[in-house]
Amino acid sequence: MSVAVDLGRRLVAEALGTAILVATVVGSGIMADHLTDDTAMSLLGNTIPTGAILFVLITILGPISGAHFNPVVTMVFALRRELKVSAVAPYILAQIAGGVSGTLVAHAMFDLSLLQMSGTIRTGSAQWIAEAVATFGLLLTILGGLRFRVDAIPLLVGLYITAAYWFTASTSFANPAVAIARSITDTFSGIRPTDLPGFIVAQILGALVAAALAGWLFAERRNEVPPIIAQGAG
Amino acid sequence: MSVAVDLGRRLVAEALGTAILVATVVGSGIMADHLTDDTAMSLLGNTIPTGAILFVLITILGPISGAHFNPVVTMVFALRRELKVSAVAPYILAQIAGGVSGTLVAHAMFDLSLLQMSGTIRTGSAQWIAEAVATFGLLLTILGGLRFRVDAIPLLVGLYITAAYWFTASTSFANPAVAIARSITDTFSGIRPTDLPGFIVAQILGALVAAALAGWLFAERRNEVPPIIAQGAG
Amino acid sequence: MSVAVDLGRRLVAEALGTAILVATVVGSGIMADHLTDDTAMSLLGNTIPTGAILFVLITILGPISGAHFNPVVTMVFALRRELKVSAVAPYILAQIAGGVSGTLVAHAMFDLSLLQMSGTIRTGSAQWIAEAVATFGLLLTILGGLRFRVDAIPLLVGLYITAAYWFTASTSFANPAVAIARSITDTFSGIRPTDLPGFIVAQILGALVAAALAGWLFAERRNEVPPIIAQGAG
Amino acid sequence: MSVAVDLGRRLVAEALGTAILVATVVGSGIMADHLTDDTAMSLLGNTIPTGAILFVLITILGPISGAHFNPVVTMVFALRRELKVSAVAPYILAQIAGGVSGTLVAHAMFDLSLLQMSGTIRTGSAQWIAEAVATFGLLLTILGGLRFRVDAIPLLVGLYITAAYWFTASTSFANPAVAIARSITDTFSGIRPTDLPGFIVAQILGALVAAALAGWLFAERRNEVPPIIAQGAG
Repeated sequence: MSVAVDLGRRLVAEALGTAILVATVVGSGIMADHLTDDTAMSLLGNTIPTGAILFVLITILGPISGAHFNPVVTMVFALRRELKVSAVAPYILAQIAGGVSGTLVAHAMFDLSLLQMSGTIRTGSAQWIAEAVATFGLLLTILGGLRFRVDAIPLLVGLYITAAYWFTASTSFANPAVAIARSITDTFSGIRPTDLPGFIVAQILGALVAAALAGWLFAERRNEVPPIIAQGAG
Repeated sequence: MSVAVDLGRRLVAEALGTAILVATVVGSGIMADHLTDDTAMSLLGNTIPTGAILFVLITILGPISGAHFNPVVTMVFALRRELKVSAVAPYILAQIAGGVSGTLVAHAMFDLSLLQMSGTIRTGSAQWIAEAVATFGLLLTILGGLRFRVDAIPLLVGLYITAAYWFTASTSFANPAVAIARSITDTFSGIRPTDLPGFIVAQILGALVAAALAGWLFAERRNEVPPIIAQGAG
Repeated sequence: MSVAVDLGRRLVAEALGTAILVATVVGSGIMADHLTDDTAMSLLGNTIPTGAILFVLITILGPISGAHFNPVVTMVFALRRELKVSAVAPYILAQIAGGVSGTLVAHAMFDLSLLQMSGTIRTGSAQWIAEAVATFGLLLTILGGLRFRVDAIPLLVGLYITAAYWFTASTSFANPAVAIARSITDTFSGIRPTDLPGFIVAQILGALVAAALAGWLFAERRNEVPPIIAQGAG
Repeated sequence: MSVAVDLGRRLVAEALGTAILVATVVGSGIMADHLTDDTAMSLLGNTIPTGAILFVLITILGPISGAHFNPVVTMVFALRRELKVSAVAPYILAQIAGGVSGTLVAHAMFDLSLLQMSGTIRTGSAQWIAEAVATFGLLLTILGGLRFRVDAIPLLVGLYITAAYWFTASTSFANPAVAIARSITDTFSGIRPTDLPGFIVAQILGALVAAALAGWLFAERRNEVPPIIAQGAG
């Protein structure tokens, strides 16, 4: 279901959704890391909540704003002319503001100092390849879902990210706004601020390749009847 | 699907559903805590059953009573005039009675003394913020689901709680009746009786903020045709 | 979807489904127990496959035989006159034969001696209460699903059992045919043969209580028009 | 939904899907194995991503190529005349090429040497029985889904493999292309190249038995009206 909604409410939906998404990623990382010494268990305790909340957020906010929560998703929709260019900057700003708020809320809930800076090193070509692959897969999932099973998009995205947390070496950030928000937490899910540019460039490249491939692979069939004949039949 | 049902059956559905929900929360907490020394593993063994049973209970009892199982959900529906005010007190009493029965059933199944009092401290502003956030998210999920995907509500609530067990520092009680029922078990999922008031106040506040926000964010579009013209056309 | 199918194919479906279900329960128990020292991890490695295969088996075999795989489910459907009494004994024999085959297949796959006898003690009033509760919940889930969301029954049963593995002290056998099949494996999921009668009696009692409650709680609404008037209108 | 698509795009879909599937299997195996000493935890960290990505890939690529990603699935569809014989070899080559690429991508993401050879021994009659059972179950799941719930096939396959990772002693390869791709990684999910023939023979046998059984069990009902009478009525 999609409804015509004013830009104000759409931006609130983008900010709110990104905030809850980041609060979930950061908060569950803190919780899991605190409760176990087994890092795979921590990652599982980070994965399951993230996949679950994505299903929820895309289902309840998708009809309002499209539930991007992600600047590269917004970028690709603008390139495909499914979003007005004038909405791109407001969307991205709402996502970043929401994401940062999500980190602050997670810190408040876990009684940590609100303002932190991550010291977790995430850099190097292997990590960048991983981020490009992760974002390529995310966009392919979204665009394939839009083409064939719109109602399944919340589940598709939730399950894709569930998988990507494990099969990519970077644990699949795949989202510049979430990456920025995760740079201001020195907890399980953090990323060093200086490592952000490499991640964001890789994410943009992965998204663009996916958009190009999807444009060909998921193309609607051409009308087989030449227009001149169709007219003649009229 | 919703059917017109007499109040007696609706109250039985509320009590039964809350009882099975609490038996699951308390029982799986006892089971998990008994089987492992890894607290994250215990929380996972508590999370998965809770999310799963919520899907089941809301699917099979929702058409009878609405499947609130939660006084603040009942309160919000009454405020939205989707539940008669006269049904509020009976609903809440059924939920509390059901919840308490659920704890007793869990104790009986695990051969523990039926009557206990929890010694688990859950208090302080960080915990209260967490409960307010948890309940805010739960109501937003329910009201967003009601607006856009009624058939998905059982899955939405099950997955929301799955996430919230991990991303909130309080493990997301988000329910006064369940909190009361959990105060009489001195096991993994318990809460000290004296900590109940703080939790319940936080839950009510979170629910009210969500109801207010949802009233605006999920509002139906205004009829674009001014009433005077519509009348003139009549 | 349901199709009219001859009894031969229905019995093959019951035997095959119960065999795959038991092979999953026993096999995953062996696998999980072999791979970890953490018993909660073993139970999780037993739970997830069981819930998953139930969704699969009920979806693909339900349209053929109803996908009971369980004598007490067959019994309740016969009591409700949704299954001919003459089919009850063949169904139950097929379920038991299938279940036993499933245990043998699991042993063959894991290179264990085919014929074993379980030494795992599962007895006492707490275990029996747990089995009665587990079976009560299973039947309530099935009958509620049949009333309100037939298409969701595979997911309902899969998720109910996922929860019940953890919230009942007995890990929820809830099925006499599966219990018999599990008595001939001396591995993680076994049950001592002498403990079978207590479990089976508890399962039958739990199922009967659920059937009685469901008969009232999920009753179709009475026709509000008295028959005499309806006749007069004819 | 299914669309008429040219062979080129179908082969790209098969190669891409198998690549992402193998990257997920191999990548999540590397990640999980690296993060924990508990082998059951590693298998869980391998299982959840695999099941999740199967849902995604079959949903978004199924309408293009049928989403086989598996030579024995392609073989069975050809035997059932649901795929032209001329497409069989191209499909299988695309699957193998895709699978091998998937392993290389996983190695690149985790900064491992691209070319490896597995040393993991997986042989013997118990393993072969396990592979035959695993592939039997996979084909039964697919063919049952095609008969009764086409829209549920992505979920059916994802959940079947989730279960089969645990209930079969071989962790359920059930796919010759994936097996080949896993022979060139010396990580958690690898298989020694010399053990491939035994696995592939077992997979083919399991698939053929399933196809034969499904041909009978899932047969459409015969038209009850004899053709001669139907003609007479015309």
